[in-house]
Amino acid sequence: MGRTVLEISVSLDGFVAGPNPSLELPLGEGGELLHDWALGLAAWRERHGLADGEESADSEFVAESLERTGAVVMGRRMFSGGDGPWEDDPNATGWWGDDPPFRAPVFVMTHHAREPLVMEGGTTFTFVSDGVESAVEQARAAAGEKDVSIAGGASVAQQVLGAGLLDEMLIHLVPVLLGSGTRLFDGGTLGRCERTQVLDSAGVTHIRYDVLE
Amino acid sequence: MGRTVLEISVSLDGFVAGPNPSLELPLGEGGELLHDWALGLAAWRERHGLADGEESADSEFVAESLERTGAVVMGRRMFSGGDGPWEDDPNATGWWGDDPPFRAPVFVMTHHAREPLVMEGGTTFTFVSDGVESAVEQARAAAGEKDVSIAGGASVAQQVLGAGLLDEMLIHLVPVLLGSGTRLFDGGTLGRCERTQVLDSAGVTHIRYDVLE
Repeated sequence: MGRTVLEISVSLDGFVAGPNPSLELPLGEGGELLHDWALGLAAWRERHGLADGEESADSEFVAESLERTGAVVMGRRMFSGGDGPWEDDPNATGWWGDDPPFRAPVFVMTHHAREPLVMEGGTTFTFVSDGVESAVEQARAAAGEKDVSIAGGASVAQQVLGAGLLDEMLIHLVPVLLGSGTRLFDGGTLGRCERTQVLDSAGVTHIRYDVLE
Repeated sequence: MGRTVLEISVSLDGFVAGPNPSLELPLGEGGELLHDWALGLAAWRERHGLADGEESADSEFVAESLERTGAVVMGRRMFSGGDGPWEDDPNATGWWGDDPPFRAPVFVMTHHAREPLVMEGGTTFTFVSDGVESAVEQARAAAGEKDVSIAGGASVAQQVLGAGLLDEMLIHLVPVLLGSGTRLFDGGTLGRCERTQVLDSAGVTHIRYDVLE
């Protein structure tokens, strides 16, 4: 069976988004700095339908992670790009365009039940309103032998970790201080991990951990 | 001139001490897990007058850092091991024994002026009650060509960073989640760093950053 993996970009001071997020600035002030490292990579650009990406160790790392992913779990804000009115609009298709980069079943945690949404390129959004265990269970079933990627935001990550459902964390540690915003870890409990892999490059340090308990 | 370097062990979730610190448990619940990686190293043990340490890349890394250090800045709690009554006791000699492992001038930030304290082995404690700029300036003068080590705790680190006095951060990232406690970064502002060195081992990932602005 595949593993359940939290994969997320984090600032050196522990934030996954900056302060004052909005529909225009879903990652808050400075939050875009967390993802600069990925934007030029061949693996990232190919997923977004863009050419001329850089082939590098980082790109291979991202490509391997994408290849391993069979299903995705995310929060409603990550689906919609913010706290907008989409939950009252049954035709809202989210923030990711007609051809989202996931190309896999995506399970969106929300309080609002809704019919699944089939997008281009292999992405489907299934809305899960009965809790984190259900979201991860459905994603595991959909992923088969592949991994379930917990894509964020922080609240979903904390729920999956807190429920003991997380096997791995892949932290992209970005050398920026956001000062404030949304913390990846907030109000958890004591736990141990084992560092299994480090890939270092100038703009980001990728660190993979097994969650031990 | 030497550089001003924050060197500190941090949990994966960003804490430098666990919850409920006390004189018996200065690093709070679980906080001792942050320093397990160092206790067996030859460089650490030699500094603490102990034999039979492990020679390893980690130990060399620690030895280099110790060699570069010409003076130390710390907070009053790090000197005393807690919030005890030492500030009213002019004879209190702190938590570190007669032969503290610093073997260099140590500048202790406190609100209580006090005469310097000369310990065995080359450690002197000088108490600085007129602010972080003064503490760092005195430490720089004492360090000469060597580095000033900002040893903690979090409050001192935040003050030095916030005052724009920090040149480098050497983060020992420990694969443990403390859940709560004292955060290294709390209430700062936007800033950029440049990752200059990574040394990875099983129990800890050492990451060195230049502070850019």
